Amino acid sequence: MRYPMHLQKLIQVLRKFPGVGTKSAERFAFQLLNWTENDLIEMSQVVRSIKEQLKQCEDCSCLMGEEGCLFCNDHNRNRNILCIIASPKDVFAIEDTNEYRGLYHVLGHLLSPLDHKGPEHLPLKKLKERLVNQGVKEVVIALDSTIEGDVTSLYLKRELADLELNISRLAFGLPMGSSLDYVDGGTLARAFSARGEF
Amino acid sequence: MRYPMHLQKLIQVLRKFPGVGTKSAERFAFQLLNWTENDLIEMSQVVRSIKEQLKQCEDCSCLMGEEGCLFCNDHNRNRNILCIIASPKDVFAIEDTNEYRGLYHVLGHLLSPLDHKGPEHLPLKKLKERLVNQGVKEVVIALDSTIEGDVTSLYLKRELADLELNISRLAFGLPMGSSLDYVDGGTLARAFSARGEF
Repeated sequence: MRYPMHLQKLIQVLRKFPGVGTKSAERFAFQLLNWTENDLIEMSQVVRSIKEQLKQCEDCSCLMGEEGCLFCNDHNRNRNILCIIASPKDVFAIEDTNEYRGLYHVLGHLLSPLDHKGPEHLPLKKLKERLVNQGVKEVVIALDSTIEGDVTSLYLKRELADLELNISRLAFGLPMGSSLDYVDGGTLARAFSARGEF
Repeated sequence: MRYPMHLQKLIQVLRKFPGVGTKSAERFAFQLLNWTENDLIEMSQVVRSIKEQLKQCEDCSCLMGEEGCLFCNDHNRNRNILCIIASPKDVFAIEDTNEYRGLYHVLGHLLSPLDHKGPEHLPLKKLKERLVNQGVKEVVIALDSTIEGDVTSLYLKRELADLELNISRLAFGLPMGSSLDYVDGGTLARAFSARGEF
């Protein structure tokens, strides 16, 4: 055995982080050895209490700490507009833009037959109830620009058609700062067909 | 506040890892949210018990788990040869090479006046006692090829001179797989002056 057992265990645990191979996990582990007892206790407690401290909001399924849902409980937000996202973490990317001050609704995942995720896995009933009860007038679909995102968006559009909402989806086109010769064909094709008056 | 409080705390803790900025810490944190309760408990416990489980061997100062020192307790190792290293983690790099099967002695740090590390901080008395008691005949100095490593090596050579040991230091020269035009001047100069018959 190369490492003392506990060190080996530590490295194995750290390797589970995304993009962390053995070398990085070793660096992390050796750095942990130099942390103070207090820092180690803090990390241990923070990790240990993730499930207890971070829950999903019952209404929008966004991540919520002990302080309650940062979105549903914020009465400065426009309750007539709802943004549909796939995962709780998408909310933070959108919040960063400062473009949107409405509410959110997390689907949990996209339609993906290969992963056995069919329409029955989407929280459609809950979404519809919320749209009606809350008097939402506009829905913004903010799903990935992938096959799964496209299919799920179309499905939502059809399912929500009878609620007489204003439904929009995020625009497709050239990303900021891109050179035409580096943009892929699919993006360019969509940017062409969605070209706007200038 | 952008994130729920606990998530923010988690990201702050993860940012302490070497080379992990806010973006990576966020990725790590969101991945932790998907871990099972058991995995979180395991990580929490492993981190929490680092100081308790990983101690330094009283003889060689290498890292040691509950199973005892992997080096001092290994009776297949040659006890007449001792390798002096700066940090407990250096041992693993050396073990990986399969070139060395003697014992180790960890200095803890190198001489570095700028960091207020003078000769009085080196465990010289303990090292000398060990060399004598154990009947060591050969010492290999395996310290960094930096100014601090050079100074510490020279200091050790002088201090150990009266023990009549065979003292050597790791060779300097071109690293494996290097192209001459990418090798720095200092390395090339040392490779020249240490050139060997071919």
